[in-house]
Amino acid sequence: MPNHESQELMVVAGRQSPESRERILAAAGDLPVHFVASLQDAGELLADAVAVAGTLTAEHLAAAPNLRWVHSWTAGVNNDLTPEMVASDVVLTSSVGNGAIPLAEHSMLLMMMLDREVPRWMASQQSQAWERFTHGELIGKTLGIYGVGHSGSDLALKAQAFHMRVLGCRRNYRTAVPGIDQMYGPDQVKDFVAECDFVVVTAPFTPGTSGVFTADVFQAMKPTAFWICISRGGIADDDALLQALEEGWIAGAGIDAHGVEPLPSDSPFWTAPNTIITPHNGATTAGTARRGVEIFVDNLRRFVAGQPLQNIVDKVNGY
Amino acid sequence: MPNHESQELMVVAGRQSPESRERILAAAGDLPVHFVASLQDAGELLADAVAVAGTLTAEHLAAAPNLRWVHSWTAGVNNDLTPEMVASDVVLTSSVGNGAIPLAEHSMLLMMMLDREVPRWMASQQSQAWERFTHGELIGKTLGIYGVGHSGSDLALKAQAFHMRVLGCRRNYRTAVPGIDQMYGPDQVKDFVAECDFVVVTAPFTPGTSGVFTADVFQAMKPTAFWICISRGGIADDDALLQALEEGWIAGAGIDAHGVEPLPSDSPFWTAPNTIITPHNGATTAGTARRGVEIFVDNLRRFVAGQPLQNIVDKVNGY
Repeated sequence: MPNHESQELMVVAGRQSPESRERILAAAGDLPVHFVASLQDAGELLADAVAVAGTLTAEHLAAAPNLRWVHSWTAGVNNDLTPEMVASDVVLTSSVGNGAIPLAEHSMLLMMMLDREVPRWMASQQSQAWERFTHGELIGKTLGIYGVGHSGSDLALKAQAFHMRVLGCRRNYRTAVPGIDQMYGPDQVKDFVAECDFVVVTAPFTPGTSGVFTADVFQAMKPTAFWICISRGGIADDDALLQALEEGWIAGAGIDAHGVEPLPSDSPFWTAPNTIITPHNGATTAGTARRGVEIFVDNLRRFVAGQPLQNIVDKVNGY
Repeated sequence: MPNHESQELMVVAGRQSPESRERILAAAGDLPVHFVASLQDAGELLADAVAVAGTLTAEHLAAAPNLRWVHSWTAGVNNDLTPEMVASDVVLTSSVGNGAIPLAEHSMLLMMMLDREVPRWMASQQSQAWERFTHGELIGKTLGIYGVGHSGSDLALKAQAFHMRVLGCRRNYRTAVPGIDQMYGPDQVKDFVAECDFVVVTAPFTPGTSGVFTADVFQAMKPTAFWICISRGGIADDDALLQALEEGWIAGAGIDAHGVEPLPSDSPFWTAPNTIITPHNGATTAGTARRGVEIFVDNLRRFVAGQPLQNIVDKVNGY
C-alpha cells in the first residue's frame, strides 16, 4: 500500500482497458482514482474512498465510512442491494441500459429459434440431410413483455416491426409505451400471460418480481406458448418452470438468465423439452462494455462537478 | 376422364385443403374448376383450359391452345418461365409476397445466428457446459439487401428497428424505399458489398441476377462480413462462394436457397466454415400457404370478372 495522507479518493474495481482508464482519469479531474482488479484488493483505500465502482459486500461498506457514491457495473443491482446498502445514505447508480439493446436482440433470436425449431435444422445439417418442415412465423402472434424497462421498450419496437401484437406488464402500467398495444398491472399477470404466444421476462429481480411465475401462472399460459427470460433468474419458480416444460403446460422455453448460475452440469434444464439454454450471455458484447464505460464516465463527471447523477437506483423498489 | 362438351374450364394443380377448395370454387363462379394433384394428371382437361394454377412444362403449354392465364404457386417464377412461356401470349401471375415476411424473419434469424455464434451455444447445451463468450450485436452494423422487393422491403424496416444502417442494391435504384439509407445500382455491386457487415440476397433468379456473386464480388466484401441467401440459388457462383468461405474472404454464410436443391448429402456446403444451412425452408409456414391462396383467389375473382390481374410477371425481366 502506498503511504498516503487522508484524502478523498475513488476506487474503481474490475478490468479496464488502457483506453477506458484514460477516459476515467480524464473524467475524474482532481479526484485521485485507484484501479483494483477486485474490491478484495482495495484494503485501506476504502477508508478514504468517497466513491467506488464495483459491487460492495457489507464488510466493504463498513470499511468505507466516507463513501457517498457507489456505481455498479451491472444493469440489475440485486447483488449490490445488501440490507446494509439499502439502509445506508450512499447513492447507488447502475449501468442499466448498457446491455438493453443486445438483450432485445437476444429475445428476438430466442423467439425465432423456438418458433422455427432451429435445433431441428442444426441436427439435419450435422447429418447432412435435407429435411424440410412447416414451422411458425412471428407475424400475427402476440408477444407479452414482463417488465418494460430499457430492453423491454426496445424489444416492443422490434416486435412491432415483426408485425406482432405487443402487450406489456409492469408496476407503472398507466404510462403508455411506444410499440405496446396494451399494458397490464402486476396483479393481472395471469390475464396477461393467457393472451400471449411468447412471454419475455425483461424485469429486474426485486422483491416485487421474485417468484412471480408460479405453477398457477404457467398453467394460465397457452400450451402453444413459449416462455423466455433474458434478465434475471428467480423471477420464475424453477420447479414450476420445469414442470410446465415437462408436462406440456407450455410449448418450450428460451432461458438466458437462470435461477442458479452457472447452471450446474446436472441441471434438468439442459435437457428440458423444447428448451434453448444460453449461459447468461445475451448482452456479452463489446458494445455493452463500451456503453457501460460511457455511463460510468458520464456519472463520474457529474460527481466531481457536484451535479445530479444518472441511473440512480430506487433502493426500496430494487431497480 | 369424364365425357364432356368442349367448354372453358380451369385446372388447379397442387394439394388444397377442403377450405381452400371451397374458397376457390366460390371465387370461380360459373367457371368450372378441376382440381388435380399434379398437371401430369390433367390429361385432356388442358385442351379446354383457359386458366391453370400450377407450373407448366412446354408440353403442358402446347396441349393448352385456349390458355389465357397461368398462376404460379411460387413467388419466384424462374421455373415457370420456359422459353415457350416467355414467347406465348399467356399472362403469368405469381404468388410473390406470400412468403415475403417469413423470409425477412428468416434473414434476421440467420444474421443473429451468425453474429452470435449460435452453434457454439447449442454445442455447449448438448454437453451441458456453461461456456460464456463475447459475441456480436446488430446495432450499429451495416446490412446490404441485394434485390429490394417484397421481402427486402420488409427486411429493411426490421433492420431499422434493430438500429442498423441499411443499404439496398437493385435495378430500379432511383426509387427511395422506406428504411433504406442508400441505394446502389446493379453496376455498383462491388461498392455496395464493400460497405456491408451482412449481405442478404432476396432477389429473384433472373438473367440479370444469375451468377452476380462472383469471386471478385466476394473478395470485395469485408473479411468480417456474412453472406446470406433466402431467395434463389444461382445468384452466387457456388464455387466462388465455397472458396470465399474456405479461404476466409468472408466470415461465414447463412444459406436457405441453394444452387442445387435438394443439397446433395455430399455437398461441401454442409460443413463449410461458419455456415448455417437451412433446406429452402425459410417461408414454409401455414401463413405463407394461406396468403398464397388469398392471392390466387383474388386473381381468380378478377379473371372471371374480366378485371386486370395482380402480380403479373414481367416475362422479359423474369419477375
